[in-house]
Amino acid sequence: MFTPLANSSYQMPAHFGPRYQGAKTSGWYHDVTTMIVSYVTDRELLSRYIPAPFELAETAVVSVAYARNRNVDWLAGHGYNLIAVNAAVNFKGQRDQLAGNYCLVMWENLADPILTGRELQGIPKIYADISDLDIHEGRWRAEASHFGHPIVDLEVAELSTPSAEDIALFQAAQQDKDHPMAWRYLPNVGAGGEALSEFTLFPSQNQLSEIQVGSGQVNWQSLSWEQNPTQFHIVNALAGLPVLDYLPAITTRGSCNLIVADSPSRVLR
Amino acid sequence: MFTPLANSSYQMPAHFGPRYQGAKTSGWYHDVTTMIVSYVTDRELLSRYIPAPFELAETAVVSVAYARNRNVDWLAGHGYNLIAVNAAVNFKGQRDQLAGNYCLVMWENLADPILTGRELQGIPKIYADISDLDIHEGRWRAEASHFGHPIVDLEVAELSTPSAEDIALFQAAQQDKDHPMAWRYLPNVGAGGEALSEFTLFPSQNQLSEIQVGSGQVNWQSLSWEQNPTQFHIVNALAGLPVLDYLPAITTRGSCNLIVADSPSRVLR
Amino acid sequence: MFTPLANSSYQMPAHFGPRYQGAKTSGWYHDVTTMIVSYVTDRELLSRYIPAPFELAETAVVSVAYARNRNVDWLAGHGYNLIAVNAAVNFKGQRDQLAGNYCLVMWENLADPILTGRELQGIPKIYADISDLDIHEGRWRAEASHFGHPIVDLEVAELSTPSAEDIALFQAAQQDKDHPMAWRYLPNVGAGGEALSEFTLFPSQNQLSEIQVGSGQVNWQSLSWEQNPTQFHIVNALAGLPVLDYLPAITTRGSCNLIVADSPSRVLR
Amino acid sequence: MFTPLANSSYQMPAHFGPRYQGAKTSGWYHDVTTMIVSYVTDRELLSRYIPAPFELAETAVVSVAYARNRNVDWLAGHGYNLIAVNAAVNFKGQRDQLAGNYCLVMWENLADPILTGRELQGIPKIYADISDLDIHEGRWRAEASHFGHPIVDLEVAELSTPSAEDIALFQAAQQDKDHPMAWRYLPNVGAGGEALSEFTLFPSQNQLSEIQVGSGQVNWQSLSWEQNPTQFHIVNALAGLPVLDYLPAITTRGSCNLIVADSPSRVLR
Repeated sequence: MFTPLANSSYQMPAHFGPRYQGAKTSGWYHDVTTMIVSYVTDRELLSRYIPAPFELAETAVVSVAYARNRNVDWLAGHGYNLIAVNAAVNFKGQRDQLAGNYCLVMWENLADPILTGRELQGIPKIYADISDLDIHEGRWRAEASHFGHPIVDLEVAELSTPSAEDIALFQAAQQDKDHPMAWRYLPNVGAGGEALSEFTLFPSQNQLSEIQVGSGQVNWQSLSWEQNPTQFHIVNALAGLPVLDYLPAITTRGSCNLIVADSPSRVLR
Repeated sequence: MFTPLANSSYQMPAHFGPRYQGAKTSGWYHDVTTMIVSYVTDRELLSRYIPAPFELAETAVVSVAYARNRNVDWLAGHGYNLIAVNAAVNFKGQRDQLAGNYCLVMWENLADPILTGRELQGIPKIYADISDLDIHEGRWRAEASHFGHPIVDLEVAELSTPSAEDIALFQAAQQDKDHPMAWRYLPNVGAGGEALSEFTLFPSQNQLSEIQVGSGQVNWQSLSWEQNPTQFHIVNALAGLPVLDYLPAITTRGSCNLIVADSPSRVLR
Repeated sequence: MFTPLANSSYQMPAHFGPRYQGAKTSGWYHDVTTMIVSYVTDRELLSRYIPAPFELAETAVVSVAYARNRNVDWLAGHGYNLIAVNAAVNFKGQRDQLAGNYCLVMWENLADPILTGRELQGIPKIYADISDLDIHEGRWRAEASHFGHPIVDLEVAELSTPSAEDIALFQAAQQDKDHPMAWRYLPNVGAGGEALSEFTLFPSQNQLSEIQVGSGQVNWQSLSWEQNPTQFHIVNALAGLPVLDYLPAITTRGSCNLIVADSPSRVLR
Repeated sequence: MFTPLANSSYQMPAHFGPRYQGAKTSGWYHDVTTMIVSYVTDRELLSRYIPAPFELAETAVVSVAYARNRNVDWLAGHGYNLIAVNAAVNFKGQRDQLAGNYCLVMWENLADPILTGRELQGIPKIYADISDLDIHEGRWRAEASHFGHPIVDLEVAELSTPSAEDIALFQAAQQDKDHPMAWRYLPNVGAGGEALSEFTLFPSQNQLSEIQVGSGQVNWQSLSWEQNPTQFHIVNALAGLPVLDYLPAITTRGSCNLIVADSPSRVLR
């Protein structure tokens, strides 16, 4: 009979053994290109999607981040694209007080990291077809669709390289405000109510070889249940958040490590 | 701030509201075509993948079931394909004693039902590209692959329609042995050990318009980590189960309801 | 050195031998489900897309036909979906005078029949992601998109089965008006002008097991070059044809043979 | 009525107007990464696939080239992957005598450039699912499959940067031997024999930012008609060419222009 080992990490189906952790795997994504468009939105509207003890940051900021991930170690070199939507928040727990980003939703175009992210870290990942980054005449563009219906497209243009000074200032401002957080939630089987509910922190580590700054734009679709029966309420909620003011958009190239040895993912309290 | 309602069913992201349960949704899959190939295998080998208090049935039988699901109500009429691998078992719990099928793994070619099945019912669904049913010169064929590498193909041929008597006998033999069961498992965040572990029952209801019987065949691939880094251990485990004797293969056409009002999914004890 | 055989049919790459014509292949598509929505449009606008010696039929009718093709012999049982757009025309050649449909464009979701159709018969096939037929609450729906941007969706509802009499009347009215025609065109290499230009007829043969009549609807998108750089001009041209009056929509189930022995595809003159 | 303009370039469907040639298009592919594995093979076997007046070069060399094309101007910034198989040849025509590569087949994972390449230049492009370049622990890998069945995978490892001297030597050796050529062929409609048959040259222009040299490997599958009914004869022919000796493998990064103003695609004679 199958019995799981106490110290190993399993995912369904658990009975075929623990997750593969061979010599060739790591948390490194060796080729990551990102495009991040952020904007100030309506505080009251955004706060409707924020569970306590999260609170919105001083300014109600939504950021939409596209990433093209390639040369991913745990996928044997394969990759995938994602579009994440975050809200700037403070976590005000009994033990933990942290400033950072609460993940509202993350679309990815590969099921494997969706399952891992949801179940190991509580990141609310769902599926979409997501374009590779398209660069044409200096404009960076990406878009997501599902069931043949567009969800969102984003674009960054007028890119320029900031001075080393500006980068240092920016990174100083970001310091201690960069904690990615989410809500791992599982319902009861065949009934209402929660079987599991906990807030999570999943630190990562970036090594950037290029940073640019420009002006960005995000266009959300409004969808009917017929057009996207599993996600229309998510897309419509995001489409309902007004863009009051765009912040400078950012693009980066570099590497990213999702398994930071001395700072593993953990439950917040 | 967002607060979930006590009696509603949520999935990540929970903060955008409960799962849609409108007038247009139901558990019905209105157009389902299946092909099921079963075989006797080595008892000792198969039992390695069966957690207590499941026990293998008297005969160690693996069944590989392909389904082409179309006109699915909760997907607004969309559909998907699946290949499920089950073991014939008895659940010998303190409260529940049931004969049925323990789901070893289920591949599906659409992420939406993968998430729902894993999180609401513990069905160990994972992603694969799965062909539509191909029928050529009386042979029914289907196959699954992921990352461009084949996983399994199955085929049924020499199909004939059984007599009404034979169908009645078959259904009588199946009675009370048809419980689909699985293991809902979630690991701790950032650590070994389980955050949630429970066995589940998820009854469904079939209305068949056609049943045929024939001879079937299943071919499993052996895969390296490089070829399928997230599933190779599952495929290799299944490829390692010898086919000692094929049972008659079955094909069906009809409808299926996954939400049976008076017999909802539940946790086994 | 490679030399093609005089009486065999080759496609690029020709040097690997003629198209496979084994015992297992035929022109039969054994499982074809269609949905056809037709409408009267503006005569002057439609005629802009009709090359002489085609002329529009008495009434300027566009028909949009969706087909889900399965169990296709030449594809070893595989299948694909298509959306064809036709104009009702008369071909007034020196030798041939025929009433039928001039194919304006045909989207398919598999490259293999696109190449065959274009090069062997001149059917102007291009690629799109095309949904499987979705049936939900009596509505049949299908849609096409490319590069993540919708092209067209069509829907048929209020379906009912016509009387045998009505079917006979309809088929009588169709007789000798059902010739599918197209324009095989190839440009010069590296220069303007035509290397090959000829009009074609490609008869097929249908065996229908079900016919229904209902009311249909077609929605064309308007697209920018950025959204669909290879097809936007086609989609916009079709979107610019007003729907003056919908004709009864038709759905069918049955089989179709694309290689009619005594009536092969041929060039019109 | 529609009439094509004499100096414009049309593709089917021609009646919607000429190919788009706006201010935003060009022949440039701004982000191209390639991996080329070449090997000496059996002269007699390879020559079976070479039509006169092509002749094999002094050494019978097959090269398998993978390219990841991104930021493609004529695709509005979209991209695609390809795997091309070439034979080293001399074209010995009445007018033209050229050393270069005869394209045996080119797989691409996007239909749009397949149609353009076949019809405008005679490049024998066909469809396959082609992985993005996977780089893992210094190994570059790519693979193609169709209908769920692998076609070929290639790998390059032990990469190092050659000296500027070596690059100069290599480029000198390549000079005047780098002509890409193919065979544009169209059969008659509904009959054997050729409607169009001509050999083509399609020059391109590369700007490389990185060149590396390593050791490569190519693995061809053997396929049945059932596994890949439209391409099995091509794959099996290539699998039948023995690898007698691998030449140094090459990887590059850079840009590529397919429309060279003073050296357009043309027909060879």
